[in-house]
Amino acid sequence: MAVYTDVSDEELEGLVATYDIGDVLSFKGIAEGVENTNYFLRTSESSFILTLYEKRVNEKELPFFLNLMEYLSDRGINCPQPVSNKSGEKLSHVAGRPATIVTFLEGLSIRKPQAKHCESLGKALAQLHLAGQGFDMHRENNLSVSGWAPLFEKAKDRANSVASGLRERTESDLLYLQANWPKDLPQGIIHADLFTDNVFFIGDDVSGLIDFYFACTDALVYDLAICLNAWCFESDGSFNLTKGQSMIAGYQSLRPLNKEEIDALPILCRGAALRFMLTRLVDWLNVPPGALVKPKDPLEYDRKLGFHRHVTDASEYGLVR
Amino acid sequence: MAVYTDVSDEELEGLVATYDIGDVLSFKGIAEGVENTNYFLRTSESSFILTLYEKRVNEKELPFFLNLMEYLSDRGINCPQPVSNKSGEKLSHVAGRPATIVTFLEGLSIRKPQAKHCESLGKALAQLHLAGQGFDMHRENNLSVSGWAPLFEKAKDRANSVASGLRERTESDLLYLQANWPKDLPQGIIHADLFTDNVFFIGDDVSGLIDFYFACTDALVYDLAICLNAWCFESDGSFNLTKGQSMIAGYQSLRPLNKEEIDALPILCRGAALRFMLTRLVDWLNVPPGALVKPKDPLEYDRKLGFHRHVTDASEYGLVR
Repeated sequence: MAVYTDVSDEELEGLVATYDIGDVLSFKGIAEGVENTNYFLRTSESSFILTLYEKRVNEKELPFFLNLMEYLSDRGINCPQPVSNKSGEKLSHVAGRPATIVTFLEGLSIRKPQAKHCESLGKALAQLHLAGQGFDMHRENNLSVSGWAPLFEKAKDRANSVASGLRERTESDLLYLQANWPKDLPQGIIHADLFTDNVFFIGDDVSGLIDFYFACTDALVYDLAICLNAWCFESDGSFNLTKGQSMIAGYQSLRPLNKEEIDALPILCRGAALRFMLTRLVDWLNVPPGALVKPKDPLEYDRKLGFHRHVTDASEYGLVR
Repeated sequence: MAVYTDVSDEELEGLVATYDIGDVLSFKGIAEGVENTNYFLRTSESSFILTLYEKRVNEKELPFFLNLMEYLSDRGINCPQPVSNKSGEKLSHVAGRPATIVTFLEGLSIRKPQAKHCESLGKALAQLHLAGQGFDMHRENNLSVSGWAPLFEKAKDRANSVASGLRERTESDLLYLQANWPKDLPQGIIHADLFTDNVFFIGDDVSGLIDFYFACTDALVYDLAICLNAWCFESDGSFNLTKGQSMIAGYQSLRPLNKEEIDALPILCRGAALRFMLTRLVDWLNVPPGALVKPKDPLEYDRKLGFHRHVTDASEYGLVR
């Protein structure tokens, strides 16, 4: 949560002049987003978010993300809509960074979701998956099973300094997941990072989804597995079955899972947990001096893996047949 | 620029329920303010800033600041207006902190002000001084001349590690200022920290003043001296006489300075520079490990002191008789 790149008066003025969005009334850096810099931008016409893409974002991939948000927005998904500048471009440059202006979404992130929020999120996820059908760009999920071993290479020598035995159980998980990872599940656009801070609510209903910069083409039900991990565990590490039931029921009310997807749910949940454990572990071991962002705890996901390893059936996540 | 204190869903909900401000639509931490935590809060009724007062703020002083903002706002000054809760209190508590909800002001801080902005600021400062007449609370300026020696005590042993000779020239300045500091100048409410980030503009005109947490009772013209320091020097350290002329002329168009104030301007400018050099020096030498805020450079004000030491007449700041 940080403002990494400062935008000067002249730079802001120069940028906004290339858009048809009115005069600037307010401009404030907001403490949101770990990867990029975000500013709240209010003009005489509307409210927007200006995002500056920092070094971890590959500029070549931005057209995928921006076109996707536009596509989804056109199909009724309440996600940030990139605003085109006067040249018709969604991607601009400011302060030496690729940048985009998107519409501002109202709503609040809920940090401690209840079952009703999980149900609403399940529905929103299914809507997203249905709306994404037909989007004709493709982006590989480079943080899926084939990406995990290279990621672990960067961390394995120091893994046991973070938790005793972490290296051994991660190696074992990796081998199991590589050997058993399902193929041929229904594919499509997945968000792949739908943590609570990327979902806005007004009251009990999802009002918007943000931060599509991990979106990619992958098994749709893997997105559900990510959300079960992110939303349905309690802070003491226990899985809340009621929340899982609500989320899965909400999802299935709009997009019923087929038999292969249901069978795959336990391994996908385990894989999703490993993915976040690994990226967090690498970040944890490589905090730059003077970092403004506190790294997230990899052991939260190590504990979740401990749960997933003993699950044999999707009903243990709350699936009702 | 940081969010020091997190406000949970429940805490926000609990707080807002004690106010009559509608339902929450959006809530975002903003990267603004060095001393306190600020959130942008949008409700179904309006936009607000929620400020949580961090440990450097003395809670006993908050009624002064909040009453002052209300008083000024009632008299047409566009400053944040504290919103009273349902019990009629302007001060609340949330997340273990004293907190207040104030109205949101539109406008942009201008980081590189031009002469026209300095003129507009001069007028706004005079308006503030005139509007503050009659405010019946008093707050000593604990960062004026009698506060500087204790401040320097905390830094003097290490001052020369920051710049060669800094200790000796600061001691000499201190003695000179203590011996010659003017008394009996017209007093009133001063903002005392009107740096560019505390002033909003729409176009070329001041649209709002924020951050009254250094406001106190002192010589009005001392506030002008602070602004001349903060607004009229170039980044190369030179004083921009055009900007000084514009600011002083703008101020005098609404509140003409008397002879004593004019005569005092050089020493007040020198004192104001010393005040900011000293607080910055103490902060510079005491950066806590893991600090989220980069300390400001005390040597910027050491260089300004170098200019002030040679000024003998207010005309050198742009005063036209």
